[in-house]
Amino acid sequence: MNFNKRYSDYKEIFENELKSRIETINSSNQTLKDAMVYSLTVGGKRIRPVIMLAVAEVLCVDFNKVLPFAVALECIHTYSLIHDDLPAMDNDDLRRGKPTNHKVFGEAMAILAGDALLNYAYEIVLRSITDNNSLSAGRLLALYAGAFGMVGGQALDILSENELKSEATLYKIHENKTGRLLLASTLIPSCLCGNEGFDKLSQYGKNLGLLFQVTDDILDVTSSVDKLGKTINKDANENKLTFVTLYGLDGAKKYAKEYYEKAKLAICDFEENEFLIGLLDFIIGRDH
Amino acid sequence: MNFNKRYSDYKEIFENELKSRIETINSSNQTLKDAMVYSLTVGGKRIRPVIMLAVAEVLCVDFNKVLPFAVALECIHTYSLIHDDLPAMDNDDLRRGKPTNHKVFGEAMAILAGDALLNYAYEIVLRSITDNNSLSAGRLLALYAGAFGMVGGQALDILSENELKSEATLYKIHENKTGRLLLASTLIPSCLCGNEGFDKLSQYGKNLGLLFQVTDDILDVTSSVDKLGKTINKDANENKLTFVTLYGLDGAKKYAKEYYEKAKLAICDFEENEFLIGLLDFIIGRDH
Repeated sequence: MNFNKRYSDYKEIFENELKSRIETINSSNQTLKDAMVYSLTVGGKRIRPVIMLAVAEVLCVDFNKVLPFAVALECIHTYSLIHDDLPAMDNDDLRRGKPTNHKVFGEAMAILAGDALLNYAYEIVLRSITDNNSLSAGRLLALYAGAFGMVGGQALDILSENELKSEATLYKIHENKTGRLLLASTLIPSCLCGNEGFDKLSQYGKNLGLLFQVTDDILDVTSSVDKLGKTINKDANENKLTFVTLYGLDGAKKYAKEYYEKAKLAICDFEENEFLIGLLDFIIGRDH
Repeated sequence: MNFNKRYSDYKEIFENELKSRIETINSSNQTLKDAMVYSLTVGGKRIRPVIMLAVAEVLCVDFNKVLPFAVALECIHTYSLIHDDLPAMDNDDLRRGKPTNHKVFGEAMAILAGDALLNYAYEIVLRSITDNNSLSAGRLLALYAGAFGMVGGQALDILSENELKSEATLYKIHENKTGRLLLASTLIPSCLCGNEGFDKLSQYGKNLGLLFQVTDDILDVTSSVDKLGKTINKDANENKLTFVTLYGLDGAKKYAKEYYEKAKLAICDFEENEFLIGLLDFIIGRDH
């Protein structure tokens, strides 16, 4: 298996779907749509959609069933980045090497573009519900994106800047802030075929999410602005709770290895698990 | 019919439903939940839920079917107020006579509380889908809340501060920013019973929405801070496009009367239309 070829094939399938969906965004205002599309198309690894398509292939789920959810999930991921970058939140000027949404469209429009993308995600989900399986996929996405999941993790992340510097808090932030949407990426294809492989994919997704985050924390101190496309050393400078600030660089690398092994173990008896293992190598080995 | 009694009965039914739903909000973080609940329970006329219950009663739709959508719609309305009040948007310190969300919880948490409420609205919607009627109600809500509807109107409102001072723009802002959620309140009960009375309720809801907004514009210049519970004369001071800034106070009052009559006419042959007409009197006659 050529991992890079297959990754870029999945990515291309997703990009084509996204492009055709974007054309149908129904906005009463062109500037708002421009702001939405800017962040949706500014680049990025599309790792969540790629995971979804890869898991769908393992479970033999029709790509046409999973693609609307992949677009919805990427819209949710994108809105969260727009809001995260706002001056009142992380105050970032750069994202994926380009000016952040509020730098281009202004703060007010960036807030609204985020809101509109979140809404649009559910427009897509609701239009894609045709049976109990797709309904349960939609419910899982909503649960993992909101106060219980991603937004809850973002809130805890903010609170942790000044307090709550414990291991349990670190784990809870990462489990929710980055982890829940990555977990949703592995579980939605399972929902779409009546929960086949759900428990194993749940273990795989949880550990993949933690691996992703610890790698992010490591890159924040070891990568360069050029490679990362965003400000480096931000976490340490802002007194954020990360694997590196809590365990040091070597400790963080030890955790990365542990999550990698656990994720791999979870899917060891899947017949077609080569690409899913490749994704773990991709995450642990990435330099941006 | 005692309008006030019936209004407060509907309101109480809604408040009880909201209270029990709030208890089930699943947040991984207590501060985030506190911020969500603060704005959800800070008061307000609950006009959208009241409209939904009133229309449901006219159409003989089971309140248990409509109440989850009423809570979802109120969550969407509430999140939009939280984001609207932010310094980067309208920069308001007061809402319903109380400090705005970001004044109490800080800007970052207010942004996240808004995001979480929007998400939670769709959590409720997705949990309440049991058939094609409830699915079509969910789809209508998503369409009217997003870039095509409310968020699109908010975006146009921001753009209109410096340009686009035309009658067509004013109408488009109001149709979307305030109008779409009020329209959704009249149409969701119809969706829930296979679109009974849809066209008439559509006319009623559109004109009720415009009536609501023109009254709002009038109150901005004629009411007091005490009564309104928020800053007055804000629109004029901020160079906003309103019915009053475009047509003057008398012109705005003429439009209010016109929308009132059109809304009334739309439902003239409904058997039980007394409360729906009462709602128009309530809106045109309110002093806050």
